[in-house]
Amino acid sequence: MNELIFIGLGLNDEKGISVKGLEETKSADSVFIELYTSLMPDFSLRRFEALCEKKIKVISRHELEEENGAVILEAAKKGKAAFLVPGDPFIATTHVTLRVDAEKNGIKTRIIHGTSIISAIVSLSGLHNYKFGKTVTVPFPENFSEAPYNVIAQNKKFGLHTLCLLDLKATEKQFLGINQAIAMLLEVEKKKQQGIIIPDTPAVGIARAGSDNPTLKADFIKNLATYDFGEPPYSLIFPGELHFMEVDSLIAFASAPTEFKRLAK
Amino acid sequence: MNELIFIGLGLNDEKGISVKGLEETKSADSVFIELYTSLMPDFSLRRFEALCEKKIKVISRHELEEENGAVILEAAKKGKAAFLVPGDPFIATTHVTLRVDAEKNGIKTRIIHGTSIISAIVSLSGLHNYKFGKTVTVPFPENFSEAPYNVIAQNKKFGLHTLCLLDLKATEKQFLGINQAIAMLLEVEKKKQQGIIIPDTPAVGIARAGSDNPTLKADFIKNLATYDFGEPPYSLIFPGELHFMEVDSLIAFASAPTEFKRLAK
Repeated sequence: MNELIFIGLGLNDEKGISVKGLEETKSADSVFIELYTSLMPDFSLRRFEALCEKKIKVISRHELEEENGAVILEAAKKGKAAFLVPGDPFIATTHVTLRVDAEKNGIKTRIIHGTSIISAIVSLSGLHNYKFGKTVTVPFPENFSEAPYNVIAQNKKFGLHTLCLLDLKATEKQFLGINQAIAMLLEVEKKKQQGIIIPDTPAVGIARAGSDNPTLKADFIKNLATYDFGEPPYSLIFPGELHFMEVDSLIAFASAPTEFKRLAK
Repeated sequence: MNELIFIGLGLNDEKGISVKGLEETKSADSVFIELYTSLMPDFSLRRFEALCEKKIKVISRHELEEENGAVILEAAKKGKAAFLVPGDPFIATTHVTLRVDAEKNGIKTRIIHGTSIISAIVSLSGLHNYKFGKTVTVPFPENFSEAPYNVIAQNKKFGLHTLCLLDLKATEKQFLGINQAIAMLLEVEKKKQQGIIIPDTPAVGIARAGSDNPTLKADFIKNLATYDFGEPPYSLIFPGELHFMEVDSLIAFASAPTEFKRLAK
């Protein structure tokens, strides 16, 4: 069978993959993996190769984005190829092009979904999924942008929460920290003066979602600005209007100060 | 060890669970499952019991919502209890209360995440995750509401996509169909006359996300209104502004008509 299967690795380590994803990997003729779009903190390629009883080729950003994944497409023309991706395969848009190219080359594609950071963070926080607005990525300072501030402002106007993913270069082990992200947003506030990100703004910082020891901390910006979240990866939620059940969750699971009770609508 | 672990079953069948989730289930002293918040079309409890080598107690809506999951909390006071939930455990807010109650009773809780329909649908469609606004559920006609129409309208104003989950009663095998949901939205349009849902509005219908044979169909409302999507569960996306790459994806993976090319910005 001649096909390309995109398989989500899920979160954190080699056991984040679904049982089905592992089975499909085991039965593939060739297996590829990329580990640059996201960080899986406790993932070991050696342990994963042992788990799926396969030799796996690591694909670089260059091979995917400059060479359009030619090595993967060639393998898929000859048999069943599996391409393993952190999280869910297409939540980052990077790999959509490869899938379109495969189909244009007459290669059948399938997706075995994986747990995505997007839903894991919502789930961990206890905040209500249907109250999240647009998601945004906060870039490294060298790519400074007012966009995250504007997205938070727009979501707040409608009472909606904002999930901010913090930028990372997994291969280079560079991660935008929560403290840094807050500093950047405060800088935009200083310029725009819209009162969106002030010292008393509530937020929730999350580190290592999906691992055995995630850090969740809900507090006001002035306190989160110096809070130590430990190891990456990081994300940050700016709540809009909070239901009292959501406040209860933040107090129970994210050590929110009791002053958060005042925020409930 | 005295604890309550919430484990996501992921999508579709008994192999949607993560390898880690399966391991934790195997080592639990007591195992509970609920199958009413979502439909896993190809899930067999008997096969799942064989896979995890455990006898599993099915928990009803009544036991969870009226009796506050007392049977689960009792088991967790005595040892390691696992509670299995379709998708990711807290994307539906139903189980947050149980987790808060457990912590208040001094029971440690953990989450093993699962693939959620929320990220799977985005991933399948090839649409860009950061361009989705607020998500909404379209209710059954007896709970008719203008809210879904208003959410789509608000998201569109900002060029954002809307993910509409269609209501279901999994235990009673009742599912709001895509055709029905469109009919309801057209009815609201007739009243509000805002031009949000007209016959030429593009949309994407999705059935059985996460299964081996999902149906994706992108088309104009006038054509989707009678399209046969096969078996449930169902969801529906109303795109906001479309990038040409997103249009390419809809043509390649969701059989969008070539007229969709005109929609690219």
